Amino acid sequence: MEVELVSIGDELLLGYTIDTNAAFFAREAAALGIRVVRRATVGDGADEIASAVKEALVRTGAVITSGGLGPTADDLTKPSIAALFNRGMRLDESIVESLRARWKARGWPGELPEANKMQAMIPEDATILVNRHGSAPGIWLEDDAGRWVAMLPGVPREFRGMTKDELLPRLVAMGAGGTVVRSRTLRTTGIAESALADKLGELAKDPAGVSLAYLPGWEGVDLRLTVRDVPSVEADARLTRAADALRGKVGKHVYGEDEADMAVLVLHALRAHRMRIAVAESCTGGMLGMRLTAIAGSSEVVHGGVIAYDNEVKVAQLGVRQETLVAHGAVSEETAREMATGVRERLGVDVGVSITGVAGPGGGTPEKPVGTYCVAVDVRGVTRSFRTSSVGDRHEVRQRATQAALSLVRVALEG
Amino acid sequence: MEVELVSIGDELLLGYTIDTNAAFFAREAAALGIRVVRRATVGDGADEIASAVKEALVRTGAVITSGGLGPTADDLTKPSIAALFNRGMRLDESIVESLRARWKARGWPGELPEANKMQAMIPEDATILVNRHGSAPGIWLEDDAGRWVAMLPGVPREFRGMTKDELLPRLVAMGAGGTVVRSRTLRTTGIAESALADKLGELAKDPAGVSLAYLPGWEGVDLRLTVRDVPSVEADARLTRAADALRGKVGKHVYGEDEADMAVLVLHALRAHRMRIAVAESCTGGMLGMRLTAIAGSSEVVHGGVIAYDNEVKVAQLGVRQETLVAHGAVSEETAREMATGVRERLGVDVGVSITGVAGPGGGTPEKPVGTYCVAVDVRGVTRSFRTSSVGDRHEVRQRATQAALSLVRVALEG
Repeated sequence: MEVELVSIGDELLLGYTIDTNAAFFAREAAALGIRVVRRATVGDGADEIASAVKEALVRTGAVITSGGLGPTADDLTKPSIAALFNRGMRLDESIVESLRARWKARGWPGELPEANKMQAMIPEDATILVNRHGSAPGIWLEDDAGRWVAMLPGVPREFRGMTKDELLPRLVAMGAGGTVVRSRTLRTTGIAESALADKLGELAKDPAGVSLAYLPGWEGVDLRLTVRDVPSVEADARLTRAADALRGKVGKHVYGEDEADMAVLVLHALRAHRMRIAVAESCTGGMLGMRLTAIAGSSEVVHGGVIAYDNEVKVAQLGVRQETLVAHGAVSEETAREMATGVRERLGVDVGVSITGVAGPGGGTPEKPVGTYCVAVDVRGVTRSFRTSSVGDRHEVRQRATQAALSLVRVALEG
Repeated sequence: MEVELVSIGDELLLGYTIDTNAAFFAREAAALGIRVVRRATVGDGADEIASAVKEALVRTGAVITSGGLGPTADDLTKPSIAALFNRGMRLDESIVESLRARWKARGWPGELPEANKMQAMIPEDATILVNRHGSAPGIWLEDDAGRWVAMLPGVPREFRGMTKDELLPRLVAMGAGGTVVRSRTLRTTGIAESALADKLGELAKDPAGVSLAYLPGWEGVDLRLTVRDVPSVEADARLTRAADALRGKVGKHVYGEDEADMAVLVLHALRAHRMRIAVAESCTGGMLGMRLTAIAGSSEVVHGGVIAYDNEVKVAQLGVRQETLVAHGAVSEETAREMATGVRERLGVDVGVSITGVAGPGGGTPEKPVGTYCVAVDVRGVTRSFRTSSVGDRHEVRQRATQAALSLVRVALEG
């Protein structure tokens, strides 16, 4: 199945917003054998929308739009596409009701504003695509020749949710599938891209009939294996052979596959050991705590922590010794260890983990340049730590430090 | 001047790469009065490239492509567009020479590979756009009717560099830049899009000759005012009139313009008052601390904080009273106030700010549904708090809660 995407919004054309919906859709669709053959981006004008959608309908007859479904006067997706299909617009009372219910449930003051009722205007003979992620419903319009347009909201959370809930199941039911593009990703951390390539050697060139891509990021380097245009059984067999071969070469750096998240792995390990954790953060200022608590259900094992941004807080709230700070500096394995032990003891948990570093742009020295950080873990009195240094801006250095700290916890719990 | 962009590459269509070139070009071009009216993304196939470029030539006659200029067999941009202009291809010896020189200067082994000479094949009667940022030169093709295509490499560093060095000066020389597109954004928080529209009333329809877009996000709703196709003095005058009119209607919700960041504003206010701040976070788990410390130089006023994810931590580390938790619950303005005061006193700072809420997906009750959160601030013993509720998933609820907390601090420091 071939489809086209039309992204709608002045903010996209003007470059104020980067379109991530299209890439999301393409990846999800590829796994089902649905291929995006063209994308267009147009502004909010009714004529622009209509002409882009019309051209796509002529070419492929299968069009997904994102954006322009909001409650304000510049949201013209529905009427301009309805006109292409020679359909009028009607007010859908069931949508008005659900908007009203939503307004009340949120405890917002007064009645549903008139402006919001715009969202309940839909083309005649249209199918409503339910939006469980926001207020604007999606629309499915189809003509007698089977050409269709699916209109989804542009807000990424809503677009993504509705793609999974409503759109992809509908396309699969229409017969998408067949030969596939299938991929599998091995996630590594604590090793550079070039070092990985060296370890892989010949295998890097042709890993058992699949293509290999290196995707470096702050979590580490992902190795993506892709197989195209073969039956799914053969694709899976090839991916398994290639993944096994890669693991043989770089095994200990692989922490998971596909969407694996180091924070989730650490929470699992803590649960398995019936242990609770607390964090002590200097340069990351709360980012490590944020990552752990980003996961629903983390409250079972995450107790809390101390953000010890200023050295006074390290001393007063974590019991770091003044002598340690003077002798080794705030950015040192010694300080990191005392922070980890301090937060473990003061919060009364099993595991303390800490980060202290120079995130930049200022604060670097020849011995401790910007990007240097130390992480430590204390598991019931046994501590480990290491110091490393990474590239990137302030944000990326902080992200990399949280990944290093979590990786250290994971190793400590496994070892 | 109106132009269209065509982005070329299978990796863009497959969603493995996000197209940032188009947004970069649009922003740079807008400042010169050049307007991007349509964008298309196509794969690497010669037919796909030709058809997208041909359509754009018919519509606007001014097309910029990115991608498909590399040395490999799947780089078909030049020959497919040359064919549209009825031009043959020729080997350009000056490009071969510069590729050879580059190869030597890099210290790479052996002679320039044959494959790389592909990059020296250019359409007949084409103008070479010099690439100082990589090896593939750009190409400018123009017909007798003045329709043109500028072909740039897809690598973002090269695309950006060549846009600035070669393309924009050329467009300005062709007469772009008489009239401009200029915009100004008012950032609001604490008010919904529809409520804003209601407050603006008639003004929302035609705010003094500028176009108005609502851009909702977790920080609040941005109101973007845009003026097109008038001289720059007139554009500025219209934007000032419109911004003043909007501020008159929604003034207290406007916290800044354009790139304003609430965390930066709070740090400024703290510096102006010579005050230091500490955070106490429950459901956000460190996100508020992370936001404040994301800004370089924040250590001057940010002392640290306590992540009180578990109620035990709220009691032991922040001095929240057990009775308060029992009587009002952890998610209550009462608990939030005690958290703010607790962190202020225990860390010995001037300002304590706190967040406690139900980020979801579980944990909601009829009285406190998912998305409910309470924020409080204590400025030298004077506390304020409020409770509200927001849409979104766990991540977005947490983001919105940090914005609400920072907004409360800002109001408290101003008031």
